[in-house]
Amino acid sequence: MKNIAYYNGKIDTIENMQIPMLDRAVYFGDGVYDVAYIKDGSVFALDEHIKRFINSCHLIDIIPPMDTEQLENVFYSMLENIDDKSSCILYWQSSRGTAERDHTYPKNVKSNLMAYIKPKSLPDIKKRIKLISSPDLRYELCNVKTINLIPNVMASERAKRAGCDETVLVRNGIVTECSHSNISILKDGKFITAPLDNHILPGIARGHVISLCKELGIPVEERHYDYETLISADEILVTSTTTLCRAAFMLDDREVGGLDSEKVEAIQNAYLSKLG
Amino acid sequence: MKNIAYYNGKIDTIENMQIPMLDRAVYFGDGVYDVAYIKDGSVFALDEHIKRFINSCHLIDIIPPMDTEQLENVFYSMLENIDDKSSCILYWQSSRGTAERDHTYPKNVKSNLMAYIKPKSLPDIKKRIKLISSPDLRYELCNVKTINLIPNVMASERAKRAGCDETVLVRNGIVTECSHSNISILKDGKFITAPLDNHILPGIARGHVISLCKELGIPVEERHYDYETLISADEILVTSTTTLCRAAFMLDDREVGGLDSEKVEAIQNAYLSKLG
Repeated sequence: MKNIAYYNGKIDTIENMQIPMLDRAVYFGDGVYDVAYIKDGSVFALDEHIKRFINSCHLIDIIPPMDTEQLENVFYSMLENIDDKSSCILYWQSSRGTAERDHTYPKNVKSNLMAYIKPKSLPDIKKRIKLISSPDLRYELCNVKTINLIPNVMASERAKRAGCDETVLVRNGIVTECSHSNISILKDGKFITAPLDNHILPGIARGHVISLCKELGIPVEERHYDYETLISADEILVTSTTTLCRAAFMLDDREVGGLDSEKVEAIQNAYLSKLG
Repeated sequence: MKNIAYYNGKIDTIENMQIPMLDRAVYFGDGVYDVAYIKDGSVFALDEHIKRFINSCHLIDIIPPMDTEQLENVFYSMLENIDDKSSCILYWQSSRGTAERDHTYPKNVKSNLMAYIKPKSLPDIKKRIKLISSPDLRYELCNVKTINLIPNVMASERAKRAGCDETVLVRNGIVTECSHSNISILKDGKFITAPLDNHILPGIARGHVISLCKELGIPVEERHYDYETLISADEILVTSTTTLCRAAFMLDDREVGGLDSEKVEAIQNAYLSKLG
């Protein structure tokens, strides 16, 4: 198969898969998700993604549909059916269940598992990207990877219309993250990134880059920084599962970064090696 | 039929209706909705609900799936199939469309229309209710009736577990609304309610109660008020499409209201008369 979708044991193509209208994802966005990258038939950092997914479930009181081993089995069974396993993404989500619409949690209902795998190439991570900034309109649960994503959708569209790759979100003057990536800076030889709180997602790629910096001897500071610090940083780094780690050259039509390209390249090369 | 569901022209029961996994409602909550009350075969204030729905669409850049007349035709055609039209609710939502998952808006894709009608009784609106309060964790788009409702779902569950009917949301000390209702107070003979901004939904019932107060000679003030003002109010009124206007007798385990029950009853009776 070119792609494959899964819904509570049912298998189909992504385009043809149907789900019940009463899945709470449909009318409340009442679910959490995760995305992992597949290289040469192996799901990269799957253990970390599943761990985060289960944590996301717990943070909004969803009982995970399966345990770690069962999830791994479902995903690898799906992957067996994919013709070209060289570069794909695995997406999955769990909603609170299927039930009549009522804001309170339904009783005696199991959470749903929906998943799909499809081919997707990594971009050229060495190519620098363009950013715009926008106020962070999101809620106070940004540490949970939920499917309540309208503010992210709108911020992402804003970047696209401006010919940019990502939108940097700024909450009360403080840089939080991007519409679907984390953001960090290099300044005076140090790697600086927002601390983990309810305003940013604990990105897996963010975590990898922190580890790689430590291995490379680059000091890491997890602290808040403002827009002025961002725009005057030596380098701006944007990290996500499907783009790894990219550096910016433009932010709000101003040239940025490019002052520590050696470290950028060292981090990127280390990440590509880690990916295998 | 006992109930009826509609999805882009397809008809089924609510329980059996299936929709595509790639509807953006499913994985981004990327849609808006509205709910109206049906009494004796007639949809109450449908024009106001459709107007708000179309406004919600525009606020997040969704092109409404149909115009007002077409929507009315769909809803009344659905209603023809319902056996007992004496007391029902009409729910409908529109998502940005069906497309491969990508945060940016899909091109050349029509918005989806999903709707259902099912029997539902109004509660006894004269029966006083119990409230709890909770921090308002929602985003900055609360004026848009979107399906990004996890904070509302969690607040609502909190009320249920505490044996309460609704959760009052408080943002930085200011009372905004409830998890799925607006909230207002009576104080010194005046009706006071939060002004329309991006932190509350422009409730149709809220608007009706404002009009009824004016007809009854009760002065109306649309202004912010804090939790202390709420708890010491003469009456606390909670309004929504499916509960009209109810008064509270308890908030966070403290007795509240009951100091202007004559006005409460006058407003409720006027509302019941308006409903016909």
